[in-house]
Amino acid sequence: MFHILDIIGTIAFALSGALTAMSKRMDAFGVFIVAFVTAVGGGTLRDVMIGRTPVGWMLDLVYVYAIIFAVVFAVLFRKKFDRLRTSLFLFDTIGLGVFTLIGLEKGINIGLHPIVCIALGTITACFGGVIRDILCNDIPVIFRREIYATICILGGIMFFILLEFNLAKDILYITTSIIIILIRLMAVKFKWYLPTIEHK
Amino acid sequence: MFHILDIIGTIAFALSGALTAMSKRMDAFGVFIVAFVTAVGGGTLRDVMIGRTPVGWMLDLVYVYAIIFAVVFAVLFRKKFDRLRTSLFLFDTIGLGVFTLIGLEKGINIGLHPIVCIALGTITACFGGVIRDILCNDIPVIFRREIYATICILGGIMFFILLEFNLAKDILYITTSIIIILIRLMAVKFKWYLPTIEHK
Amino acid sequence: MFHILDIIGTIAFALSGALTAMSKRMDAFGVFIVAFVTAVGGGTLRDVMIGRTPVGWMLDLVYVYAIIFAVVFAVLFRKKFDRLRTSLFLFDTIGLGVFTLIGLEKGINIGLHPIVCIALGTITACFGGVIRDILCNDIPVIFRREIYATICILGGIMFFILLEFNLAKDILYITTSIIIILIRLMAVKFKWYLPTIEHK
Repeated sequence: MFHILDIIGTIAFALSGALTAMSKRMDAFGVFIVAFVTAVGGGTLRDVMIGRTPVGWMLDLVYVYAIIFAVVFAVLFRKKFDRLRTSLFLFDTIGLGVFTLIGLEKGINIGLHPIVCIALGTITACFGGVIRDILCNDIPVIFRREIYATICILGGIMFFILLEFNLAKDILYITTSIIIILIRLMAVKFKWYLPTIEHK
Repeated sequence: MFHILDIIGTIAFALSGALTAMSKRMDAFGVFIVAFVTAVGGGTLRDVMIGRTPVGWMLDLVYVYAIIFAVVFAVLFRKKFDRLRTSLFLFDTIGLGVFTLIGLEKGINIGLHPIVCIALGTITACFGGVIRDILCNDIPVIFRREIYATICILGGIMFFILLEFNLAKDILYITTSIIIILIRLMAVKFKWYLPTIEHK
Repeated sequence: MFHILDIIGTIAFALSGALTAMSKRMDAFGVFIVAFVTAVGGGTLRDVMIGRTPVGWMLDLVYVYAIIFAVVFAVLFRKKFDRLRTSLFLFDTIGLGVFTLIGLEKGINIGLHPIVCIALGTITACFGGVIRDILCNDIPVIFRREIYATICILGGIMFFILLEFNLAKDILYITTSIIIILIRLMAVKFKWYLPTIEHK
């Protein structure tokens, strides 16, 4: 179940990468790489920083296949994506929740401090998009407009609070995911933004 | 023999980095770093992702010396490079073939799936240039114009097909390298490009 | 003592990241991440390349707290920073010296060649700033204008020369730090620059 959500998230992230790459007039290879990096970049960075190598996607080809599927889908249906906006946003939000939890879990597994685990959850969920924007020569969108990473951090804090209640692992995971997804939906619905801090 | 080709490739990649950096009006240090990263960036990224640390160039100083030589050469003869265009292109193509094979080999050595090995070969050969372009604040050229990474992927597939024939390792390596080099030469001669996929 | 200087350097680097991010009109999260990456990016890259994982800042939360303090400070007093210019520059210079030494030490600890150790010192001190500039979509400033990395390299060479004299470790570290700090102060005072190498 969680694995299926993980793959849905991977596909959503790969789609967002492919769409960004196409808007930059890249060739087929560029579109594929940007999609790939958006989908696995956060997890790869996390794995490399905690020494979990070879990194995750090298050991389970289902991610590679999911990304190839997403790229082919994005290329074929690129003119229809306006109509898919809502589904895409929902899938992306699922990815946000699931990736955050996976990052948290990897940190807990090797006994890191909760603050570091929350950082790992945020990196897993957000840094694929950061690398996507760097490859596309933009300032990362999550540094400027979207309240995105903040939701991962809130979700991570929630996770450690719930952990105190000795819930079953399944319930803990599902509850945290739903909280993250709900905050995201509310953030977009009610247009929550972090203040921009300007200087000179 | 293969080691010599590896060093020729390293020098060619370092030259391409140094030339790009000079076109961006960098200072001497910037030119050196961009050359260095172009030459060893792909292999470093590969090593870090498969946990082969300290990464390759730290254990064999011949790469460092080769890059220093390339940078000094590039700075001294920067006004003559137009005449060297053909040699440079040939060396770069040798680098492409050799680096792809080295990446493939590292993946096979630790028992990764052929698809992941091909990814590692492509990363080794192409991501030095990707990091070069990011440091120079450009969208990576291999995502837009050059059919470059695609050749690594084709070469990698060829390698695994030839592997089925139980060739001696030497012959397998030389054959694959020559195939990669030939495809590259033809791609440039006949102006093969991947289609640009545009959207919005 | 050395640990205190390390934290002063971390704070100075985080401040420089926060100030750069604010000049790019980032939101609160963006400012925090750019500050974080500027402060720990160089050490993280070093640790990842030599396989020292989980990377340093994950195991000692004092860096995380120091960076949070620096970000809050930078945001609150952002209009006063012109008056703090001299203190900031001094702290940054302390960071430069201390971070170079820490990088050198990590390389020596695992028996790498002096040239590679100097590279590690330079990476530790300089690549946080490189990643900061990439995240902010600029060509890294140390590749263009500031004689910054060159000072790390000179300091590293000095370190290995002094090592021949069998000084006590404390004296060796303090002497090298002071040399690096003095060269930096002189470089800025007398406006030393590396030549820009231009081509086309």
